[in-house]
Amino acid sequence: MFARIDHVGIAVEDLDAAIALYESTYGMELVYREAVIDQGVDAVLLDVGENHVELLSPLGPDTPVGKFLARKGPGMHHIAYQVPDIERALADLKAAGMRLIDEEFRIGIRGSHVAFLHPASTGGVLTEIVQPVDH
Amino acid sequence: MFARIDHVGIAVEDLDAAIALYESTYGMELVYREAVIDQGVDAVLLDVGENHVELLSPLGPDTPVGKFLARKGPGMHHIAYQVPDIERALADLKAAGMRLIDEEFRIGIRGSHVAFLHPASTGGVLTEIVQPVDH
Repeated sequence: MFARIDHVGIAVEDLDAAIALYESTYGMELVYREAVIDQGVDAVLLDVGENHVELLSPLGPDTPVGKFLARKGPGMHHIAYQVPDIERALADLKAAGMRLIDEEFRIGIRGSHVAFLHPASTGGVLTEIVQPVDH
Repeated sequence: MFARIDHVGIAVEDLDAAIALYESTYGMELVYREAVIDQGVDAVLLDVGENHVELLSPLGPDTPVGKFLARKGPGMHHIAYQVPDIERALADLKAAGMRLIDEEFRIGIRGSHVAFLHPASTGGVLTEIVQPVDH
């Protein structure tokens, strides 16, 4: 069902410091930056091989990532797996009894089709599935 | 410096339930299982493309993962990046001012060479570097 890890989403308090760490120290290429208003984040994508790191800086304290930072501090926020057909993946996961945050996909960063599974049915891991736009 | 995401380590309370989720529902192949006594965990590796998920079940409450579960509950525990030469990567990271948990690599799961960076210098993300044994 899952082709690879698409990205790991990381909640950060200081986006410039995080970009310096991942780009300069770790040597990852910064490939995309977008304010995803719908999700209340300033998001930065960096390449690491076929995978990505997604740095997430909240647009305000009442956003999901703002609340996450207040509750848990900075760190890993979610994991995203790449799927070739998100509608089929959602149908299969629902049929398997998984609880979905998104019953239908929505548009995520860089025009991708994304949906989140609920941590209550994933052992506490906020899990996203992603169909990149070029699939 | 980093070739790809090697794996994401996930702390679990119920290893059998987690294996059922990742293997049966997500369709990942379980490729390896090992009690890593040194780290106090029963560890299970599953393939997802070129990446892995590493399920971590503590061998006791006083282990690092046992304490993590007591403090934070189940969920994402660490991210590991693959490197072609771990000694060079450690030297480069140290030269860049990163704080290391392991100044020298040690033997991790499946005979790999691994080292951890301290979350204090990675924005709260427990970060591992891994040189697989077949490199």
